[in-house]
Amino acid sequence: MNPRPGNQLFDAYFTAPAMRDIFCDRGRVQGMLDFEAALARAEAAVGLIPPVAVAPIEAACQAERYDFAALAEAIAVAGNSAIPLVKALGKVIASGVPEAERFVHLGATSQDAMDTGLVLQLRDALGLIEDDLARLADSLAHQALRYADTPLAGRTWLQHATPVTLGMKIAGWLGALTRHRQRLQELKPRLLCLQFGGASGTLAALGNKALPVAEALADQLKLKLPEQPWHTQRDRLVEFASVLGMIAGSLGKLGRDVSLLMQTEAAEVFEPSAPGKGGSSTMPHKRNPVGAAVLIGAATRVPGLVSTMFAGMPQEHERSLGLWHAEWETLPEICCLVSGALRQAQVIAEGLEVDAARMRRNLDLTQGLVLAEAVSIVLAQRLGRDTAHHLLETCCKRAVAEQRQLRDVLGDDPQVTAELSADELDRLLDPAHYLGQARVWVARAVAEHQQFKC
Amino acid sequence: MNPRPGNQLFDAYFTAPAMRDIFCDRGRVQGMLDFEAALARAEAAVGLIPPVAVAPIEAACQAERYDFAALAEAIAVAGNSAIPLVKALGKVIASGVPEAERFVHLGATSQDAMDTGLVLQLRDALGLIEDDLARLADSLAHQALRYADTPLAGRTWLQHATPVTLGMKIAGWLGALTRHRQRLQELKPRLLCLQFGGASGTLAALGNKALPVAEALADQLKLKLPEQPWHTQRDRLVEFASVLGMIAGSLGKLGRDVSLLMQTEAAEVFEPSAPGKGGSSTMPHKRNPVGAAVLIGAATRVPGLVSTMFAGMPQEHERSLGLWHAEWETLPEICCLVSGALRQAQVIAEGLEVDAARMRRNLDLTQGLVLAEAVSIVLAQRLGRDTAHHLLETCCKRAVAEQRQLRDVLGDDPQVTAELSADELDRLLDPAHYLGQARVWVARAVAEHQQFKC
Amino acid sequence: MNPRPGNQLFDAYFTAPAMRDIFCDRGRVQGMLDFEAALARAEAAVGLIPPVAVAPIEAACQAERYDFAALAEAIAVAGNSAIPLVKALGKVIASGVPEAERFVHLGATSQDAMDTGLVLQLRDALGLIEDDLARLADSLAHQALRYADTPLAGRTWLQHATPVTLGMKIAGWLGALTRHRQRLQELKPRLLCLQFGGASGTLAALGNKALPVAEALADQLKLKLPEQPWHTQRDRLVEFASVLGMIAGSLGKLGRDVSLLMQTEAAEVFEPSAPGKGGSSTMPHKRNPVGAAVLIGAATRVPGLVSTMFAGMPQEHERSLGLWHAEWETLPEICCLVSGALRQAQVIAEGLEVDAARMRRNLDLTQGLVLAEAVSIVLAQRLGRDTAHHLLETCCKRAVAEQRQLRDVLGDDPQVTAELSADELDRLLDPAHYLGQARVWVARAVAEHQQFKC
Amino acid sequence: MNPRPGNQLFDAYFTAPAMRDIFCDRGRVQGMLDFEAALARAEAAVGLIPPVAVAPIEAACQAERYDFAALAEAIAVAGNSAIPLVKALGKVIASGVPEAERFVHLGATSQDAMDTGLVLQLRDALGLIEDDLARLADSLAHQALRYADTPLAGRTWLQHATPVTLGMKIAGWLGALTRHRQRLQELKPRLLCLQFGGASGTLAALGNKALPVAEALADQLKLKLPEQPWHTQRDRLVEFASVLGMIAGSLGKLGRDVSLLMQTEAAEVFEPSAPGKGGSSTMPHKRNPVGAAVLIGAATRVPGLVSTMFAGMPQEHERSLGLWHAEWETLPEICCLVSGALRQAQVIAEGLEVDAARMRRNLDLTQGLVLAEAVSIVLAQRLGRDTAHHLLETCCKRAVAEQRQLRDVLGDDPQVTAELSADELDRLLDPAHYLGQARVWVARAVAEHQQFKC
Repeated sequence: MNPRPGNQLFDAYFTAPAMRDIFCDRGRVQGMLDFEAALARAEAAVGLIPPVAVAPIEAACQAERYDFAALAEAIAVAGNSAIPLVKALGKVIASGVPEAERFVHLGATSQDAMDTGLVLQLRDALGLIEDDLARLADSLAHQALRYADTPLAGRTWLQHATPVTLGMKIAGWLGALTRHRQRLQELKPRLLCLQFGGASGTLAALGNKALPVAEALADQLKLKLPEQPWHTQRDRLVEFASVLGMIAGSLGKLGRDVSLLMQTEAAEVFEPSAPGKGGSSTMPHKRNPVGAAVLIGAATRVPGLVSTMFAGMPQEHERSLGLWHAEWETLPEICCLVSGALRQAQVIAEGLEVDAARMRRNLDLTQGLVLAEAVSIVLAQRLGRDTAHHLLETCCKRAVAEQRQLRDVLGDDPQVTAELSADELDRLLDPAHYLGQARVWVARAVAEHQQFKC
Repeated sequence: MNPRPGNQLFDAYFTAPAMRDIFCDRGRVQGMLDFEAALARAEAAVGLIPPVAVAPIEAACQAERYDFAALAEAIAVAGNSAIPLVKALGKVIASGVPEAERFVHLGATSQDAMDTGLVLQLRDALGLIEDDLARLADSLAHQALRYADTPLAGRTWLQHATPVTLGMKIAGWLGALTRHRQRLQELKPRLLCLQFGGASGTLAALGNKALPVAEALADQLKLKLPEQPWHTQRDRLVEFASVLGMIAGSLGKLGRDVSLLMQTEAAEVFEPSAPGKGGSSTMPHKRNPVGAAVLIGAATRVPGLVSTMFAGMPQEHERSLGLWHAEWETLPEICCLVSGALRQAQVIAEGLEVDAARMRRNLDLTQGLVLAEAVSIVLAQRLGRDTAHHLLETCCKRAVAEQRQLRDVLGDDPQVTAELSADELDRLLDPAHYLGQARVWVARAVAEHQQFKC
Repeated sequence: MNPRPGNQLFDAYFTAPAMRDIFCDRGRVQGMLDFEAALARAEAAVGLIPPVAVAPIEAACQAERYDFAALAEAIAVAGNSAIPLVKALGKVIASGVPEAERFVHLGATSQDAMDTGLVLQLRDALGLIEDDLARLADSLAHQALRYADTPLAGRTWLQHATPVTLGMKIAGWLGALTRHRQRLQELKPRLLCLQFGGASGTLAALGNKALPVAEALADQLKLKLPEQPWHTQRDRLVEFASVLGMIAGSLGKLGRDVSLLMQTEAAEVFEPSAPGKGGSSTMPHKRNPVGAAVLIGAATRVPGLVSTMFAGMPQEHERSLGLWHAEWETLPEICCLVSGALRQAQVIAEGLEVDAARMRRNLDLTQGLVLAEAVSIVLAQRLGRDTAHHLLETCCKRAVAEQRQLRDVLGDDPQVTAELSADELDRLLDPAHYLGQARVWVARAVAEHQQFKC
Repeated sequence: MNPRPGNQLFDAYFTAPAMRDIFCDRGRVQGMLDFEAALARAEAAVGLIPPVAVAPIEAACQAERYDFAALAEAIAVAGNSAIPLVKALGKVIASGVPEAERFVHLGATSQDAMDTGLVLQLRDALGLIEDDLARLADSLAHQALRYADTPLAGRTWLQHATPVTLGMKIAGWLGALTRHRQRLQELKPRLLCLQFGGASGTLAALGNKALPVAEALADQLKLKLPEQPWHTQRDRLVEFASVLGMIAGSLGKLGRDVSLLMQTEAAEVFEPSAPGKGGSSTMPHKRNPVGAAVLIGAATRVPGLVSTMFAGMPQEHERSLGLWHAEWETLPEICCLVSGALRQAQVIAEGLEVDAARMRRNLDLTQGLVLAEAVSIVLAQRLGRDTAHHLLETCCKRAVAEQRQLRDVLGDDPQVTAELSADELDRLLDPAHYLGQARVWVARAVAEHQQFKC
């Protein structure tokens, strides 16, 4: 029974298959079943249910045994996914070992199963994302070192500014990733928590066995036992969503930089080519930034999705209606989009094609103007900031107006030549001599990256 | 080939099946194929391609003939869905009538097929939503009239205020829907537009046949020919998304009102019950607002999705990368969520269970305080606003402090009785005499609704 | 008394002074006072209050007579701005004509004054925006015609594609504005509505004079009398916010295009220069897109603000707490940001500097590849789509690899020359011959603009 | 010169004065001036500028010496706030010690001053928020302990469920705050970082003195020296915004709970009353949740503002236009809204009025149904889950239908009495015996809170 036609045409492009495997019908159902199986084990361990009940429950806790389409229909009546699943689970158990059926889901509420199941999925998702981040950071560290001395135009306000290096630009991408990895480390103890409170959160149904069951259950699932249930305190999930949002944003910046550098007019850096990749149906020569589009797309979509997670926080009393529901598809979607962006970023980072010669040529586009600062700084020391600034401004305008090299204009200006020799001018106007701390920044970012790994 | 596990567990709950049928893989593919078939007909009509090429192209333009999983993989390489589809289409044609293959997609660009296909889907979606809105408005009009004289406590800041009627409350829900229907009417000529511009939007590839083809194509598809292609002017889509967002918001208000009225403490209005609906796994007596949860959920999710559509507007030059991509799954998701909310709202509106007796009892919860205004107004005319306000405030506080009926406190106050007789006080403190224009508002809202239908 | 330090450092950059004049403390207070004065007139007109009470009330309804700082403090206690204002108003009246004081605000509730006052402000804001849109559209129409034949590279995915004209690009900006102006026209009857319902919306306090007062009040203020009060049906405001959001998005697209064209590498189009404008403290030669930054900034900020308006829709019962409050500063901020963007767009549109020669040179950057389509189309007709596509792809790759003009590569290819003569090739590779419907699009967009004005 | 009318009518209600003092014109300007003064000291320390230049620069670095209105106008031309400020700073210095003027802002770029100035403001803001969180957490811990044994109805889906305690509910609010305080601790080393990179981020203008200057500057300002400049890597700011967003969400949950408990029908918990607070202009008896409205309002507005911060992350190359601008007013606004919400939450937490007797009465509203679970659990052990569930469902429905106490219905049912004695039934249906781990949760949350403080 397949009640709905598929809706996955863009999945292969926008998400990573491994993440979709986590956040699919099977994954959701298995998460809840893992909770139910562990609950049975925990309750048997503390003597609440007979040990013989455990095996039949565990045997029934396999997603493959359930009809997801029928579940979907039942969810529409029940208002959540755990009620019909637990009902179906009971039937499967009863069909095998009827006397075990009464021991399933004991003392738990639907949201316990749904939230803990979700946390188990999120643990897998977090693992994937950490792995992807680590691999991507490695690639970027490698590339940052490789291009540590490759100058290109710095660009501020999309205008050429003083030169930078490609390595430094890449190190900027890397630095953000290292911080995201720290954030994920830090949030883990808050995120990877058991949800277990029963009807209103008090676990009253379990009497004085409540805490031992909770501890055993957390132990079973290798989750932390939180200070209390968090059915309507959703900051744990929102925090994860927000770090994912930051990752999307940083990858969006990477994608934007790459797509700008790939512009026909810049042509300095390219996504790796592949057969058919980025071809246009009408322009056979084009190399569209097909991967960068995913990065920018994710960075455009995720902020709205994250805002939904924030908007869903003011949940009423002991269980919300509507705000809780708003999370169910939103957080998985964020995970999927971020995983897809990570995958595309990895392809780009590993296969980055660099045209260093073109970078050097582009640096000359302003005929030396991007190095005016180098001259200005020196002159400011000798003539005062305003005078020097005004002098350079005049020379630069002249260079532009007369379409001459700034070097020539400066060499003709008596006020300039009174202060600077021809040799000094030559040196000041060579980009390779004006890269400042670019190498240091690369080294520091790579060091921070390597330290994180240890 | 099914490359991805399903992810539809909440579809039956959150969306309407008919809307999902529009926004599924098949629907997306068929939309593009409808464009291609119509293009062939249009180009044959103006003599650009031979008439015999049309039938083989049309025959190939059936979504069932395509492997969506393979398409999904190809999309990840191509960066959009039209490139691989057109390629596959060519192969299907070539396998039948090879000489027709060269006449497919002539002069068009990928985005022409994708956007026009989308518009065709949106036309169907718009039809569904208009039908659902009309049916829901009819139900609400019926209920507004039915309960036009049923008093209940007005509630401002969640505090009891002067009485209103249930009909008036429902008329408020109705009035918003009528305005949404007007909005949909108005946006139609802007939304239901052909996209057809070729590579950069100039249709240069079609030479002097370009405009005739465009006109014939628009005609074929019964779409408007816009003033120019709109590949990077996305306001047409964003406008639709924003009206859908308003519908979601209005339904969220309906859902919030219903869920508040269903509270155990209020118990005035209920969603219709159904076997198993809204039951809790641990509290067999509960009647959870399972439908209202969908309305509130949609009203929580859609604002973030709509903001993505707005955020995607600054698309670069003649075709965007990333911002365009951000729309592909977002707009369909909005349509699906709104359709699901409409479906649940219809169930609620049609089957609304009302406890008028409880409403009357709840009106007495404040022991007459909600009618203090009635007294205050009359006294203000005689004693001045501040004096009257202060006098009532004192009496109300005394009524609260002494837990007495306001009627009794007022009857004991010489300053009050100097102005108002016992009869006057009785009349002033009867809710049924203090419903103001409630009936008029109902009549006006229903009239506006009926006028819209004509 | 000025209880708070100013916070207006970016106002002159991000907003228009005239819009800030509407949405300042004075503007807000005057809006509410205009409501109160009109209410007095209306109630006198229907005989509810004595005519002599009107003049003293009107005299007190001048914002200048109130201490905004004291009001601000009182708002923090009262929870809205009307309660303390009406209290202060009463005192001002009482200090002059004590017997008139009792006739102020009769039958109204705080939200009546706040919402109607807001609508009066919004009417002014709408007028400003319509004027600015009209002026901007005129400028764009002028420029679109001026540059109707000025070719530049079309750019899709930020890659050069077939040529377009600058006029056509500008016409795209214009077309969106025309649609926004239509939208504003259409929403006017929904937005410019009286709010008047009294405590719970029934106007019960006014007895059988309620409807006549409401009609007279609407008449006084030249607002529509809505079908019923809309205290918790906020779609009227959200609709306006969403059209403003679309305007911000369209201007963001304009700003993005301009900033990309201003890139050092493109240098095709510039914001007008002005003394000191866009200068950098360290790079005297730069011309930063200072205006485009405002457009992009507004397009980045407004989506989040609009989403707040949507999120605020599910307002409880007859008056919301919190969701209503969320609107108070948000909608004015949207108005201010959009007005600021419009102002900057006008500067850009009027003073646009265009380097047509550079455009022509940039068109050659791909050595003819952007015209490959022109050749491809012709060959496809003769050799079939796939063969032609493959042939061109090969030639284009060779041109890139050998850094030769596509014209030369094609001229050397026997398969090509078998189909196309040298003359045909020359013509096909001239951009001026491949502008398609660019002129038509300009004419249609300008015509639509002119029709709107009539 | 005051170029713009004030716009602060809601400041006293929505923000904390101390936070507005940080984020006002003076605060912004002083932040940048603190950077400039420290830069002079740092550059003198490493011998880059003469020590005598420091004092005149420092003397000029006082915000009071600048005309903010003139600055605002200059910002509109320059495109940022540092260019005109540095220019004005130079003039002020020159007016005193002309020879010092040339040593100001040496090697820095505008964004260095703006970002570092912002970080200094954010450090103050963070301090305020940490103090407010600590105080609020103390109050909540106190109240959680005080009401640890006060039972009230648990409410799930806004329906009565098994009982909880007020202390447990408050402990839930507390737990979230403790996590937010952890998050703020963790992000501090990432947020409190120097921004210092010069024109393109390389610090090239400072030659081999660059790193020593940077280190001295960071030292002067007690900020961390980051691995590299972060002009277009904005995750540091976005992370702070997102934690503020979580705080807003958690306070919104507190506000929602309080406003629901304050409902006329519930009347269990109240914001503290104060003269005039929450009064209605027409209903003198009302006690509006004036503080909760601020909490809910902030929780509604902040998600959209936070999404703007996320949306602003993909900043181009070495300095963005537009995306950077989008942060300038957005992040301060988030800080102000959160500080205002914290202030109101403190008032509520400290002065919470509790009606425990009413809570107990409300617990009886369902005539024992909320304790059906207690019975169900016991019966499930003996009869199996489904049988027990079905039996209870039947009894509960009968209790509802016949409007009888569940205790009586159960006592009459032979299937029930076969399993449970009258004493057992009495005990099972007493709320005080069914509070489960409520006390434990309180103890754990308070312990976590106290541990954080140590």
